[in-house]
Amino acid sequence: MVTHAPVGDGEFDRSTVVTRRETVENAAGENTAREGVYDADLSPDWTVANVLNGGYLLAVLGRALADALPHPDPFALSAHYLSPSVPGPAVIRTQTVRAGRTLATGQASLFQTGEDGREVERIRVLGSYGDLAALPDDVRTSATPPVLPPPERCVSPDDGPPPPGDFALAGRLSLRLDPATVGWALGEPSGRGEVRAWFDFADGRAPDPVSLLLTVDALPPTAFDLGLLGWAPTVELTAHIRCRPAPGPLRVAIMTRNLAGGFLEEDAEVWDSADRLVCQSRQLARAPRA
Amino acid sequence: MVTHAPVGDGEFDRSTVVTRRETVENAAGENTAREGVYDADLSPDWTVANVLNGGYLLAVLGRALADALPHPDPFALSAHYLSPSVPGPAVIRTQTVRAGRTLATGQASLFQTGEDGREVERIRVLGSYGDLAALPDDVRTSATPPVLPPPERCVSPDDGPPPPGDFALAGRLSLRLDPATVGWALGEPSGRGEVRAWFDFADGRAPDPVSLLLTVDALPPTAFDLGLLGWAPTVELTAHIRCRPAPGPLRVAIMTRNLAGGFLEEDAEVWDSADRLVCQSRQLARAPRA
Repeated sequence: MVTHAPVGDGEFDRSTVVTRRETVENAAGENTAREGVYDADLSPDWTVANVLNGGYLLAVLGRALADALPHPDPFALSAHYLSPSVPGPAVIRTQTVRAGRTLATGQASLFQTGEDGREVERIRVLGSYGDLAALPDDVRTSATPPVLPPPERCVSPDDGPPPPGDFALAGRLSLRLDPATVGWALGEPSGRGEVRAWFDFADGRAPDPVSLLLTVDALPPTAFDLGLLGWAPTVELTAHIRCRPAPGPLRVAIMTRNLAGGFLEEDAEVWDSADRLVCQSRQLARAPRA
Repeated sequence: MVTHAPVGDGEFDRSTVVTRRETVENAAGENTAREGVYDADLSPDWTVANVLNGGYLLAVLGRALADALPHPDPFALSAHYLSPSVPGPAVIRTQTVRAGRTLATGQASLFQTGEDGREVERIRVLGSYGDLAALPDDVRTSATPPVLPPPERCVSPDDGPPPPGDFALAGRLSLRLDPATVGWALGEPSGRGEVRAWFDFADGRAPDPVSLLLTVDALPPTAFDLGLLGWAPTVELTAHIRCRPAPGPLRVAIMTRNLAGGFLEEDAEVWDSADRLVCQSRQLARAPRA
């Protein structure tokens, strides 16, 4: 087990820094308080097979909106992925769509400069933000946490053969996979489309609402458990943050029920150490070619 | 049972007409092919307690994007609801974010003129569109259709006491609710947070990908089955259209697992007469005050 460190000074924090430009101009050259522009430096530490992880990118955008909007926490963040991001500089343009008393909605786009020198949009998101700490404590739920063996009886990605290509993301995380959901690593996928794991940052950084945006997309994809060992590029991913996570390891369960027409959904649930359902997400992805 | 009519000339079609303005100018006064502006007339026929149904509004926006983008069908449509829409004129501004070979992504906002004469944004959406007819027929699914009694043993909203306020939407639909999920109408909610129903348009209009955007938000809310009889305003709703629906009645199951901090998720599944899972959606809504 890792020792837990506070939010703010971990690898994740340093890799998701966004820096607001002081002077903001809109397309007509006017300053506008409703648009904030941020610089980011996408880190190669969060890649899988040389592709930047979609959850990491969502967290970068989530931090920019958290700064731009008057409320701190993402309640609902919807991302449409347009083109693969690469490590290096990126610009995030935000817009405040509506600022209400308890919820604010904003939009953000992540751009990078392509090889031809032109700006390419990578991801566009809409986010509704509020203050999780201001919510009442009432919980009425029929959801139950995923059943997982204790971490010491789970499997680390380090225990298996290294996956093809670079897998820098693995070094940032302490994942402990339920042995019942890793048959695919031995050529024996269960066919159920389920993966469950304990999730921690390798450096012990505690979870917070923004890091949950990474957590929902950080496990080996459900497609592996369906016998499809390839990249499943995300088309759309929406995450709902339902509660500020307590310190300690998270339990994550991801599941695919329906693969059809070359697309699949992947649902994720994240539970904290206090047995609270802290996040639900769903993504639509292209199925890997079998 | 209703007799099924073709898509195109039903009440739903007439109520979701969007008309593209011929000359399109951007903020700088330049014509641009990447931005389309549409006029709509939001119909009072799709209200519940005098509030326009969120699924109806999503369908209006979905039609505008279907026209604006080079691909016809919504694969993933994410909506953030900003302020309550009212019957009457509306303007929809669209933007093509990316046009790819098999998928295109666009953005659309619905505006109305407020009482003070200023334009108010009601809803903003991001949508990724493709061509459902072009997808391969492969299906690998562990999902099973909801189990419902036959329609003749289900309950019509007309069978119970009329709900408070206007309920024009009920007249547009032929809903047949599973008796096991309508205890709330008799003051005995099950507490499970589930509602199941057969769905048809009252005039027999057949389902299509755009009408599914209405279907996911057209049942009595799951909050009723949790004993919370009030309006549950949607914060965010994302729908994935997975298959072009076959003609015939649809089966819809909606479920809430987690009510916490004054918010709840509502998941919807829609199945067609050919036993295909044609749509999955999830919304985050404010819980009604108990």
